[in-house]
Amino acid sequence: MIKYNPKLWFSHIFKLYKSDTLKILLPEIILISIYTWAINFILTKFFPEFNLKVFKNAFSIHTLLGFVMGLLLVFRTNTAYDRWWEGRKHWGALVNNTRYAAIKAQSLLPRNNETKDFIELIAAFPYSLKNHLRDIHTYEDLEISSEFKVNLKNYNHIPNGLISLMYQKLNTWKKNKTISDIDLLLFDKEIKNFIDILGACERIKNTPIPFSHTLFIKKFIFIYVLTIPFGFIPDFGYWSIPIATFVFYVFVSIEIIAEEIEDPFGLDDNDLPLDELSDKIKTNIKEIEA
Amino acid sequence: MIKYNPKLWFSHIFKLYKSDTLKILLPEIILISIYTWAINFILTKFFPEFNLKVFKNAFSIHTLLGFVMGLLLVFRTNTAYDRWWEGRKHWGALVNNTRYAAIKAQSLLPRNNETKDFIELIAAFPYSLKNHLRDIHTYEDLEISSEFKVNLKNYNHIPNGLISLMYQKLNTWKKNKTISDIDLLLFDKEIKNFIDILGACERIKNTPIPFSHTLFIKKFIFIYVLTIPFGFIPDFGYWSIPIATFVFYVFVSIEIIAEEIEDPFGLDDNDLPLDELSDKIKTNIKEIEA
Amino acid sequence: MIKYNPKLWFSHIFKLYKSDTLKILLPEIILISIYTWAINFILTKFFPEFNLKVFKNAFSIHTLLGFVMGLLLVFRTNTAYDRWWEGRKHWGALVNNTRYAAIKAQSLLPRNNETKDFIELIAAFPYSLKNHLRDIHTYEDLEISSEFKVNLKNYNHIPNGLISLMYQKLNTWKKNKTISDIDLLLFDKEIKNFIDILGACERIKNTPIPFSHTLFIKKFIFIYVLTIPFGFIPDFGYWSIPIATFVFYVFVSIEIIAEEIEDPFGLDDNDLPLDELSDKIKTNIKEIEA
Amino acid sequence: MIKYNPKLWFSHIFKLYKSDTLKILLPEIILISIYTWAINFILTKFFPEFNLKVFKNAFSIHTLLGFVMGLLLVFRTNTAYDRWWEGRKHWGALVNNTRYAAIKAQSLLPRNNETKDFIELIAAFPYSLKNHLRDIHTYEDLEISSEFKVNLKNYNHIPNGLISLMYQKLNTWKKNKTISDIDLLLFDKEIKNFIDILGACERIKNTPIPFSHTLFIKKFIFIYVLTIPFGFIPDFGYWSIPIATFVFYVFVSIEIIAEEIEDPFGLDDNDLPLDELSDKIKTNIKEIEA
Amino acid sequence: MIKYNPKLWFSHIFKLYKSDTLKILLPEIILISIYTWAINFILTKFFPEFNLKVFKNAFSIHTLLGFVMGLLLVFRTNTAYDRWWEGRKHWGALVNNTRYAAIKAQSLLPRNNETKDFIELIAAFPYSLKNHLRDIHTYEDLEISSEFKVNLKNYNHIPNGLISLMYQKLNTWKKNKTISDIDLLLFDKEIKNFIDILGACERIKNTPIPFSHTLFIKKFIFIYVLTIPFGFIPDFGYWSIPIATFVFYVFVSIEIIAEEIEDPFGLDDNDLPLDELSDKIKTNIKEIEA
Repeated sequence: MIKYNPKLWFSHIFKLYKSDTLKILLPEIILISIYTWAINFILTKFFPEFNLKVFKNAFSIHTLLGFVMGLLLVFRTNTAYDRWWEGRKHWGALVNNTRYAAIKAQSLLPRNNETKDFIELIAAFPYSLKNHLRDIHTYEDLEISSEFKVNLKNYNHIPNGLISLMYQKLNTWKKNKTISDIDLLLFDKEIKNFIDILGACERIKNTPIPFSHTLFIKKFIFIYVLTIPFGFIPDFGYWSIPIATFVFYVFVSIEIIAEEIEDPFGLDDNDLPLDELSDKIKTNIKEIEA
Repeated sequence: MIKYNPKLWFSHIFKLYKSDTLKILLPEIILISIYTWAINFILTKFFPEFNLKVFKNAFSIHTLLGFVMGLLLVFRTNTAYDRWWEGRKHWGALVNNTRYAAIKAQSLLPRNNETKDFIELIAAFPYSLKNHLRDIHTYEDLEISSEFKVNLKNYNHIPNGLISLMYQKLNTWKKNKTISDIDLLLFDKEIKNFIDILGACERIKNTPIPFSHTLFIKKFIFIYVLTIPFGFIPDFGYWSIPIATFVFYVFVSIEIIAEEIEDPFGLDDNDLPLDELSDKIKTNIKEIEA
Repeated sequence: MIKYNPKLWFSHIFKLYKSDTLKILLPEIILISIYTWAINFILTKFFPEFNLKVFKNAFSIHTLLGFVMGLLLVFRTNTAYDRWWEGRKHWGALVNNTRYAAIKAQSLLPRNNETKDFIELIAAFPYSLKNHLRDIHTYEDLEISSEFKVNLKNYNHIPNGLISLMYQKLNTWKKNKTISDIDLLLFDKEIKNFIDILGACERIKNTPIPFSHTLFIKKFIFIYVLTIPFGFIPDFGYWSIPIATFVFYVFVSIEIIAEEIEDPFGLDDNDLPLDELSDKIKTNIKEIEA
Repeated sequence: MIKYNPKLWFSHIFKLYKSDTLKILLPEIILISIYTWAINFILTKFFPEFNLKVFKNAFSIHTLLGFVMGLLLVFRTNTAYDRWWEGRKHWGALVNNTRYAAIKAQSLLPRNNETKDFIELIAAFPYSLKNHLRDIHTYEDLEISSEFKVNLKNYNHIPNGLISLMYQKLNTWKKNKTISDIDLLLFDKEIKNFIDILGACERIKNTPIPFSHTLFIKKFIFIYVLTIPFGFIPDFGYWSIPIATFVFYVFVSIEIIAEEIEDPFGLDDNDLPLDELSDKIKTNIKEIEA
Repeated sequence: MIKYNPKLWFSHIFKLYKSDTLKILLPEIILISIYTWAINFILTKFFPEFNLKVFKNAFSIHTLLGFVMGLLLVFRTNTAYDRWWEGRKHWGALVNNTRYAAIKAQSLLPRNNETKDFIELIAAFPYSLKNHLRDIHTYEDLEISSEFKVNLKNYNHIPNGLISLMYQKLNTWKKNKTISDIDLLLFDKEIKNFIDILGACERIKNTPIPFSHTLFIKKFIFIYVLTIPFGFIPDFGYWSIPIATFVFYVFVSIEIIAEEIEDPFGLDDNDLPLDELSDKIKTNIKEIEA
């Protein structure tokens, strides 16, 4: 994720960032310009009367359908943004939850190496979740005791494995009376939260909007954009080239951005700062332990 | 559910998938083309003056009502999508909940066959819920001990029966002091979640949008589409055939998709991947048990 | 509530159901037709020039205001639908809650007649809530022990009374050590849910949208509809009769449906299936008890 | 709050209620009529050509901006309604919560005068909250024991004081073993709810929408309305007086209603029935105690 | 935050507040006026025919795209407002939570200096959170005992440090049996809430809307505004100067306001009254302690 000041205007308008749809769509924009020019050339050259008579009011249809498309694209933007923001909320909750789990461990457990290992397990969870969401299935890099690493061998699903290990550890402590039943109840909530955050992130990652919506919106945009020149040429002639291109840029940009933010766990400019959040959590936990 | 890459454009635009509304609506689209041609033929042949004079501005009414219909269809899309997404959330919660119930069982219960049977009961719940939501009422295929199957004979509502069996089991353990009162409290939350997920899925399955809305939206679309040619013919002549057809395709597609995703528990392309999720849960639980 | 297949089109378009706004609005539709005819007759007969000159562009105002009205009506539809769906959610939660309360009672309480009576109390709650929401204040029909009926005499608010009785019963058991403190905690959540569901349904029933909104929307629709003919007649002559009628039908239908689903606890076609849900709950509980 | 039947149309259209925006805006409506007449007079008298030429298409700008304003006003309506409905939800939760607190007190506490006083404290809370939200800071009218009234002297924030007294009372009972630790846990949830409801109502009361929004929307409406006659006069002449007035009525009404329902705790027609709810709660509690 | 009466109209319309977008945008508004004048001058002077012919219908494109922009800006306003309101909710929850934590401390803990120090810790939390959200990292001004200040030296993250200290204190009390296990459970919820509020506020502060959205909306507005004169000049001549300026003012204001309220924790007119809320909490706690 790029950190930026939302109140800057000029740099945002004139610079071309990697995630700028103007940059992403450049080839298509050029293509549409050429296409509009070609249609214009053919119509005015070979069918001059036909053009003026038949397509004179064609733009009114683009207005009606443009309205429907606007509504659909805002619906699309909304649902994509909701996933992005929900993803962010879950990682925010992960920050809270790891902090609190560490505070509890530090307070309720005896100050020994076992506790230290347990807190390491908590601090490692965000890293394992981050990797899991990016389809990296490894536990070698996690900063946890080698004993835990041995146990993780049995798990394909690393974050799940970490949670299992936490619970087993707590249960051992409960059984040898290091912690009371109520203490376990206090930890239970945090573990439950780890599981819920994990499940919710998996859900966001694995479920794009319904397939029919994607098919329909793309077909709709495609036909709409290809017929735009017919609506503009009678009125604007060759000036319809920048106009058609701009309309194309606006409609397709909204769809492109929605596609980009829908899965917020990758490494794009728009994706959530998972690395940064994981590091921040580790720093926080280090402070609590100190 | 079809797994797809939402960033693919060309294959989505040019391929015809089973769930593509273009395919579903093909017969109606042909019908509308013929209908528009017929109206056009009759009007220009027999009432040429009338046509140009009376219906000249008819399109402005279609614009006004098209706007209202656009708003209604987006409302429709929103509510249908909300159910689809809520259904997905509940199955996501089911993943979390079965994982955690299995972790708890593995940690808090003694490692014996009874515990194994109990964990099987947890792993079987998603399968029984899936069948229940698809109106398949059987417990024979569930991978649970034959003792439990005997008990399930008393239940018409299989998922409910499984939950009852879980609770009875826990209560037996509580009574013979295998688990403490607080342990039961720890399991209680998960069982409650199973019940809530079951009830929520039943609610989504059994409650389509209000009957009046369905009646009204369909009547509205029907009259709107049948009168579209009158608005287009004065301006576009025979070119109104592709235009009317496209407008029809756009409006009806949105309604059709809404109908498809409203009940997300079936076997359509757009439906949620219940089989896959059930299998994933089983694999997760197997790993936890290992 | 009518059970229906949302994918049926033709029967929905051509049949006239009781809750169809086309049927409800039939008298008004006829009235509007006559009114438009009369305005048309007067204008073309007595003020032919005036008509064409002054009102030529009147329709553009209807377009602008029609847009604002469309937005308002969708806001109205949204809030009405939200109540309907919230009501459904609470009754869904009631299903879950009665099921779980029954499972708990069956497991945690001794198998005797007192427990049987207690479970009857749970099964009777949905019936008493249903009656309460329909302003039927009786407890005679409830299938509960005569001892409880005697106690209910003190209550005007029957569902509240049932909840009080449940809690008193549980407290008696707690005091004579039939159940532990933790057991009471386990039941406490379910009782709390009964109270919350009861309160939420009462809130939905007793609070229509703000009075000013109702007054304003109706005045707005009334003036809008009465002036529609002036906008249509210059362009369409007598053809403005079906057009004005259709516009009227569309706008008023949306408001009518909103009014119908806003209070979802009655006996209309659109109302929630409270009877069916209550019976389903009773069946579920019977199964759990068996 | 006025109780009304939302399905009545004619009385709502023809009667003028106190909260009717038509009544509230009457002076402004007359002013706008005069203003439009004056502009019309000046333009047609002194600048007849200029008028027809320059402002001929001015209405198209009002259409574009009218659309943006419609969207803004619906956003405004939505946020105002959300507060109103959230306020209603919190008072609904207060009903549930006082009922349950009274049921618990009646069951868990010994039947003596101290308990009676405690339940009075619960029944008094809605009254004190109601007064607090209407800036009436008194505890003299509350029906609580004089001993409690003496204690309230130390509090400027009466509802907060009542909650403190409840908790202190419970703690005294806990310390002299009248209630167990788990019993305190059972009451803790209800007290927490009282605090949350209190805080949420204070938040709604004290936070209108952002200042910039209010400034902007009012400036926007003001300029829009003052320029409306210029758009209508070329087409409609003196008929633009009722038209401009009606457009003004529609746009400003939506803003006025939003302002009225935004703070739902006063004594306006649209405000929530706090007195009635407080009395209902008292009656409910009396029944539970009986 | 400015306290204001939302029902005042005239002062809001005619006064220029610091946060008024009319004031903020004044330089740009002047620039746009000059720009429109220049375009007008050039077009009418050097390309009079071209102007009238080519750009005659250009405004229809601005209408279509103006609609899409209106939808986007309302989406933008909605998400910005949601953050502002969510921030307000969390600070409202902070009020509730500190009140209740103080009430619990006052009731459950022994009345001694240690308890007094603990309550000071609670009252100091809002101040430390406020500073943290404004990037002021100091604990010197907090009104807490010097012993705690010494402990805070180890923390860069002050609010986190305060929560750690609270938990450690509670755990010490639990270990020396000043409070029971259940008492700790009672405090646990409040501490959890402190952590959740802290995390949520950090999330709102650190996550502006996706970078692509900002880039796209600004580019879209920029091109839209620069081309507006071309659409207006053929119809309105020099009168297009106030018109283009007003359209610019409306569209850009909505974006500007969204940017302002998106991060609600600063010191702008629109920002939340964090100082006031912190002081209010302190006063409330003082009263509870008295």
